[in-house]
Amino acid sequence: MFFNLQPCFPGFCVCVCACVRARACVRVQSCHATKPNLLNVHLVPHTHDDVGWLKTVDQYYYGDRNDIQHAGVQYILDSVVDQLLKNPDRRFIYVETAFFYRWWKRQSADVRRTVRRLVDEGRLEFVNGGWCMSDEATTHYSAVIDQMTMGLRFLNDTFGPCGRPRVAWHIDPFGHAREHASMFAQMGYDGFFFGRLDYQDRSRRRIAREQELLWRASDSLTPPMADLFTGILPNGYNPPEGFCWDQSCDDPPIRDDPDLEDYNVDDVVKRFLAIANTQAKVYKTNHIIMTMGSDFQYENANLWYKNLDKLIRYVNGRQANGSRVHALYSTPSCYLQELHRANLTWALKTDDFFPYADDAHDLWTGYFTSRPALKRYERISNGNLQVGLRGPQWSDHRGPQGSDHRGLLSGKAMAVAQHHDAVSGTEKQHVADDYARRLAGGWLRCQVLVSNSLAALSGSTAERIYCDKLNVSVCPLTESSSKFSVNVYNPLARPVSWPVRLPVNGTSYKVSDAEGRSVDCQVCVCVCCPLLKTVCLCVLVLQFLRVTFDPDTGLLSGLSNLETKQTIKLTQNFYWYNASDGNNSKSDQPSGAYIFRPNSSTPFVISRTAKTETVQTSVLQEVRQWFSPWVSQVVRLHGDSRALELEWTVGPLPIDDDLGKEVITRLDSSIQTAEYFYTDSNGREILQRKKDFRPTWILRQSEPVAGNYYPINSRAFIKDEVDQLTVVTDRSQGGSSIQNGSLEIMLHRRLLYDDVRGVAEPLNETSALFPEGLVVRGRLLLSLDRPPTAADAHRPLAQQAVLQPTLTFTDGDGRWSPCLQFSGLQAALPPAVHLLTLTQWDEDSVLLRLEHQFQSRESKENSRPVTVNLQKLFSTLEILGASELNLSANQWKDEMKRFHWTPQTGM
Amino acid sequence: MFFNLQPCFPGFCVCVCACVRARACVRVQSCHATKPNLLNVHLVPHTHDDVGWLKTVDQYYYGDRNDIQHAGVQYILDSVVDQLLKNPDRRFIYVETAFFYRWWKRQSADVRRTVRRLVDEGRLEFVNGGWCMSDEATTHYSAVIDQMTMGLRFLNDTFGPCGRPRVAWHIDPFGHAREHASMFAQMGYDGFFFGRLDYQDRSRRRIAREQELLWRASDSLTPPMADLFTGILPNGYNPPEGFCWDQSCDDPPIRDDPDLEDYNVDDVVKRFLAIANTQAKVYKTNHIIMTMGSDFQYENANLWYKNLDKLIRYVNGRQANGSRVHALYSTPSCYLQELHRANLTWALKTDDFFPYADDAHDLWTGYFTSRPALKRYERISNGNLQVGLRGPQWSDHRGPQGSDHRGLLSGKAMAVAQHHDAVSGTEKQHVADDYARRLAGGWLRCQVLVSNSLAALSGSTAERIYCDKLNVSVCPLTESSSKFSVNVYNPLARPVSWPVRLPVNGTSYKVSDAEGRSVDCQVCVCVCCPLLKTVCLCVLVLQFLRVTFDPDTGLLSGLSNLETKQTIKLTQNFYWYNASDGNNSKSDQPSGAYIFRPNSSTPFVISRTAKTETVQTSVLQEVRQWFSPWVSQVVRLHGDSRALELEWTVGPLPIDDDLGKEVITRLDSSIQTAEYFYTDSNGREILQRKKDFRPTWILRQSEPVAGNYYPINSRAFIKDEVDQLTVVTDRSQGGSSIQNGSLEIMLHRRLLYDDVRGVAEPLNETSALFPEGLVVRGRLLLSLDRPPTAADAHRPLAQQAVLQPTLTFTDGDGRWSPCLQFSGLQAALPPAVHLLTLTQWDEDSVLLRLEHQFQSRESKENSRPVTVNLQKLFSTLEILGASELNLSANQWKDEMKRFHWTPQTGM
Repeated sequence: MFFNLQPCFPGFCVCVCACVRARACVRVQSCHATKPNLLNVHLVPHTHDDVGWLKTVDQYYYGDRNDIQHAGVQYILDSVVDQLLKNPDRRFIYVETAFFYRWWKRQSADVRRTVRRLVDEGRLEFVNGGWCMSDEATTHYSAVIDQMTMGLRFLNDTFGPCGRPRVAWHIDPFGHAREHASMFAQMGYDGFFFGRLDYQDRSRRRIAREQELLWRASDSLTPPMADLFTGILPNGYNPPEGFCWDQSCDDPPIRDDPDLEDYNVDDVVKRFLAIANTQAKVYKTNHIIMTMGSDFQYENANLWYKNLDKLIRYVNGRQANGSRVHALYSTPSCYLQELHRANLTWALKTDDFFPYADDAHDLWTGYFTSRPALKRYERISNGNLQVGLRGPQWSDHRGPQGSDHRGLLSGKAMAVAQHHDAVSGTEKQHVADDYARRLAGGWLRCQVLVSNSLAALSGSTAERIYCDKLNVSVCPLTESSSKFSVNVYNPLARPVSWPVRLPVNGTSYKVSDAEGRSVDCQVCVCVCCPLLKTVCLCVLVLQFLRVTFDPDTGLLSGLSNLETKQTIKLTQNFYWYNASDGNNSKSDQPSGAYIFRPNSSTPFVISRTAKTETVQTSVLQEVRQWFSPWVSQVVRLHGDSRALELEWTVGPLPIDDDLGKEVITRLDSSIQTAEYFYTDSNGREILQRKKDFRPTWILRQSEPVAGNYYPINSRAFIKDEVDQLTVVTDRSQGGSSIQNGSLEIMLHRRLLYDDVRGVAEPLNETSALFPEGLVVRGRLLLSLDRPPTAADAHRPLAQQAVLQPTLTFTDGDGRWSPCLQFSGLQAALPPAVHLLTLTQWDEDSVLLRLEHQFQSRESKENSRPVTVNLQKLFSTLEILGASELNLSANQWKDEMKRFHWTPQTGM
Repeated sequence: MFFNLQPCFPGFCVCVCACVRARACVRVQSCHATKPNLLNVHLVPHTHDDVGWLKTVDQYYYGDRNDIQHAGVQYILDSVVDQLLKNPDRRFIYVETAFFYRWWKRQSADVRRTVRRLVDEGRLEFVNGGWCMSDEATTHYSAVIDQMTMGLRFLNDTFGPCGRPRVAWHIDPFGHAREHASMFAQMGYDGFFFGRLDYQDRSRRRIAREQELLWRASDSLTPPMADLFTGILPNGYNPPEGFCWDQSCDDPPIRDDPDLEDYNVDDVVKRFLAIANTQAKVYKTNHIIMTMGSDFQYENANLWYKNLDKLIRYVNGRQANGSRVHALYSTPSCYLQELHRANLTWALKTDDFFPYADDAHDLWTGYFTSRPALKRYERISNGNLQVGLRGPQWSDHRGPQGSDHRGLLSGKAMAVAQHHDAVSGTEKQHVADDYARRLAGGWLRCQVLVSNSLAALSGSTAERIYCDKLNVSVCPLTESSSKFSVNVYNPLARPVSWPVRLPVNGTSYKVSDAEGRSVDCQVCVCVCCPLLKTVCLCVLVLQFLRVTFDPDTGLLSGLSNLETKQTIKLTQNFYWYNASDGNNSKSDQPSGAYIFRPNSSTPFVISRTAKTETVQTSVLQEVRQWFSPWVSQVVRLHGDSRALELEWTVGPLPIDDDLGKEVITRLDSSIQTAEYFYTDSNGREILQRKKDFRPTWILRQSEPVAGNYYPINSRAFIKDEVDQLTVVTDRSQGGSSIQNGSLEIMLHRRLLYDDVRGVAEPLNETSALFPEGLVVRGRLLLSLDRPPTAADAHRPLAQQAVLQPTLTFTDGDGRWSPCLQFSGLQAALPPAVHLLTLTQWDEDSVLLRLEHQFQSRESKENSRPVTVNLQKLFSTLEILGASELNLSANQWKDEMKRFHWTPQTGM
């Protein structure tokens, strides 16, 4: 049982054990007939249900807190099902499985039967189908794949193949990541539709009729493996003006009773035909799509359908008088099918859709960093979830009972956090709190899973303690016990070296490993020597790196890789942009949760000098820097690490000057970047960025800083012929390179104005613990390498940042345990292979995802294909059989037949 | 075929011809079982659908102009029917047939069948059931009976006896007229519910548990003929606080999924039980009612019902733990049935519920006068409609074809105008315009009916011209033709003397009657003699009256009845109250469409003197008075009239001083009124009023003027032992007697602020014709009599004001017509008998209402019973048979079996 892994191909899914093949979706033609010689207008009734935004996901489900926003998803689904039954011509699509699942489990057998029939007949169609519609700028591919799998699995289990979405549908996210497109392709989608893109890009594409295109979403995968047909919707995701018939809209209904006042059928039809003909001019085929719905619409679907029924009847009635327009109820997949039948060639795109601007000074690049604490919490939670899901595989605690339930609930918390107003940081404060609370609940459940599994492995029922606050040096057990044991669980499929830092009260400790051997350790009691300004050049140096500081300023001044004998000049400091308050001659757009808009392109330095202290031992060297009461940093070198750690602490950002602040850390190096820099896409492939440049159109740059910001999910780098400086982040952040040799990353934002995109709150985070404003701490890992081998360092480094070891503690010396060390793998996986997923699937099978984690051509050593022998993989699992699935595990790989699309270039 | 008419008993309906008796409504128990030992909470799902207010009736029906107010009745009915089908326990009541009719005629046979079943099973119950929920302060009984009949007939025709409402339901009108209660009793209702009453009255009744009572609504009719059980709803017509689950509300839904956040079942049940127990303390029985709905609610009925289903389940579930509360879906008639079963005695009430105050300075007495032009237009329209409906009876143009259709449409325009935000003047301007437009359409249709009928009677097809603008002396035909004929159609059942005033261009005309006899006439060319201040006392005197003027002021100074040899001092002048702008230490309530709140109790005189002219001929004597550029008056005496006419012209009210104005005319007499005065109720019986006094509670008067205002629909009077001065109005107006011997009537209002009751517009009427502000003209008829015989004068006078003769014109001398005079009656009816209704009912029958128009004891001569021989009544109708119906003609009189209720006093 050998499987070949191509570079950057995470779609390797193994369903271990005998897998029953489901029937295919055999459907009588569910798409309405179109008219080949007319302009066919596909009317797509839909609702866009945010999995949390102004209200929490459960408030949205129930229709609670309608004072904030009128929205109740339970009623939407009730109403749509009722209305679909009134007229078999009607269609509806549903997107967010997080909501559909909540609704489904409260339905009677009767209703379920009815809904199954509607799905089988294609009258109710699922599109996208993930647990949520994930954010594309701030999510990590691992969590996106999980949330998509969770939603699609529910649909598959509930509705079989007819419930499988054919179309990906990201109508609201604020910019689109290439990696998302790649994943959607590997999940078997035939096409992808979205609503938002840069206004300049939109304008050009309208003229060029390139709003429908072929997105080649990977540099590594062989086409058409990551090709995704992509359609840009004509009107965001809203209906055309004057045709919104939801209860939330005020457009005139069709008044067709001639006995009553204001009969308006002629007017309505005339306006509709004008809009349809205008729209047809900016698309390629004689089919156009109109999204008939919007945020939380269809709560009273009768309003929509009653008027749509009439619209279709009256519009098509005009054909008898020579009208060339044919309106029909449709779905994205029916529309896509017609585009496919058109058999045209389509413009090819290989970059991404970042950053998104909806006007000259309205760059949606603030949310790349908004709510940095939530973004970090989400990232750690993903690690915890993976650990929790893997745990049961190493023992007999498998099975769909308690453990499965706990993993599912934790998975749900992570899944809703992927929503495009969740980890993105663009929700109201109380909703952000709700996401965090859910994630915290997930931690607890995962900890139970890990404890159970460790108890089974160790044969001990001793209580296991988790210290969730180690990031702020809090762990009651280690601080009070004179003797305790630490269990380190490494979820990666290879050994890692990981410094364990614990708060203790004693001054001298003996540490021994599982075999009883003594372990090198250091008790730091802040016996540090202040770096005096008059002292000569200060240097941190350990095995792999040498770091220099400027004695006059206390700032970093240089970095050397002792192995490769590279040295660069490198200074680093903290700055803040003054957030626009909207009081500006060019535009009244303020900075907010979504928008980044500095008042000036030159940031203010927080301090030209840092007060410093240093700690220098054989295993650890640190320089601690204080820049202001609200910015400090520890520059840290571990003995066995090839990366330099910059642990920053920022906040509370002062606002007593009534100025909103957006704080960056900036690295200024001697590297000759020529305006290029590089950022990752969802933690996977790397995209090249160039200042004031977009690959697909001639940019008119109107925001010299915000317009150059891109999302950094896991890493960014700058390079020249000889040096590459890579920064691995611990969460998603926004960043850019504004000057030659420079790389800046936005760390924290505190704003005093709302940016008028609906959230209606300034992004001004405080909490009970931080009433003066949130303090955020994080880590950047810097790696200096030769460009051809840089990936060999940053790929594993970034995976370590995502899947950190889990520490558990028990009081006493742990000698009671018969088994102190265990590995679930027979051997470490090859460096190129990442164990992405390992989780119980059903009673007899697990879902395994092995990923080739290197991009093609980025590493001579590791960018090559690898072969893995599944039967030699695990120490605890006997593999009886395996079947390959698509990336989202809802289709057999060999049955995944996607539409074929031809790019214009013939490539 | 003789029928006896008791005084004030207008419920005399004859269905001429063989009448098929409909089956009775045989219903399996449709009311849910109650629990005798528990507190039963009757939850009544309902919607309150204004037949026009902020939007026009058709806008409300369609859900158009949702930018003004979200409301679409078509969707309400769609949704409620769907939701009733989901659970047979659910109930709904529907009220306004104007809307139900619009909806019904667009439904498929399937839906109709379903709805009939719901009605038959009592799951959908009609209450009230008139075309609209009429206003009680500003409507005339004749139009109210017609609109109720129209609605109830539709229900009867469509649903048979099971569609007959058992309960009258006036949850929104702003004060309640005793005559309405009397009519409801005579229409067969078992009970009556309303929502608004004076806050002091409410408070007293809560303590005394007298919110449910027996209203004895007539001084004349023998109990229990006009007895009406009356219930005051606990919360207006809204749900209790926190329990509004409509889409228009923000109360928390019941969140009963323990897997989701914020499970709140315990909290909801606890709050509900507390409210129920508190409410039970202010009612008498172990049954209480909760109105679960409000304005235009249930557009998405699922929200309400889904939560109500849960509420009932969870509340009743607590009975297992000893809870003493039982919640059930119910209807007003089911609730009423339980009150009746309680077999208690009830407080008796014999006055009315005017005026309505919802707080100390918030007297809803402004709308008695608001939009005086609309009020007049509505009143004339009623006359036109009656004329139009009667017309076809005098010829062969009967039948349900065109004529019936026209009458129906005209009737509908009148019916919607009875709505409590229509003739009341409390709608938005564009809605008032819509009512007027509908009435104008009715005029046209009635004119066709009259023309057809006159053509048939006269044997001539000569074009008949209508001069609708005679009130402003415009009639193109008479102004241009040298020879024309006038047809005068008197709709009353007795001869009247009526001055015909026409605009002409010539200076000398010969006028002859139908027999060619010369008729006394006068051409007035304004050859008038100015009343000089130095001239002696000016006097108008003709056959019956003598009127004196003060030569110093030009004001009226005395009035004598020459027949009875009565003389009183009588001055008359115009004043204005300064409308409060809400900027006031006591309350921030401004005057508005609903509310009358003068800044000061002393009105400003418009002018202490009037400039005058006089015209004195043998048939007509006039004094024309000019008080200001915006107030003038003609005091007019017709030779054969016993009443003095005061034709006032008021407007445009100046607002350049930024002061809202409420203009009154005030009569100050030598009559010793001792703080008493008298106003009619809906044009029928008279109620005694006393300054700063209410018959059923000790009033704390906080608005010395507005708190003494009462509606005047047709007349008001003041009297002492020897003199009674009666004023007959031409429309509904507000009025009072603030000083001894004084009677004031509010004529016109122009206001600069909204009064915060929802209409959201100041009552500041302008129009294309009157861009500077509306000019209004009207007439008061003054009659001075001895009190015991005053009714003999004012009863016929008021009927003449309502049913004025209709004039039609033809060019030429009319000699071509073989028949110049015709009467539909064999003889004049006795003075006590008024022909209230005569209209085609179906192909073979007509609906006839004969009314005894005198109150008992008000006239020695005319307050006696009268007998009428139907077969001797009409000259054109041969009466083959007759059956007596209830007042609204939807039930046979002998089958009208109402609940019997016992008053506390045993009366």
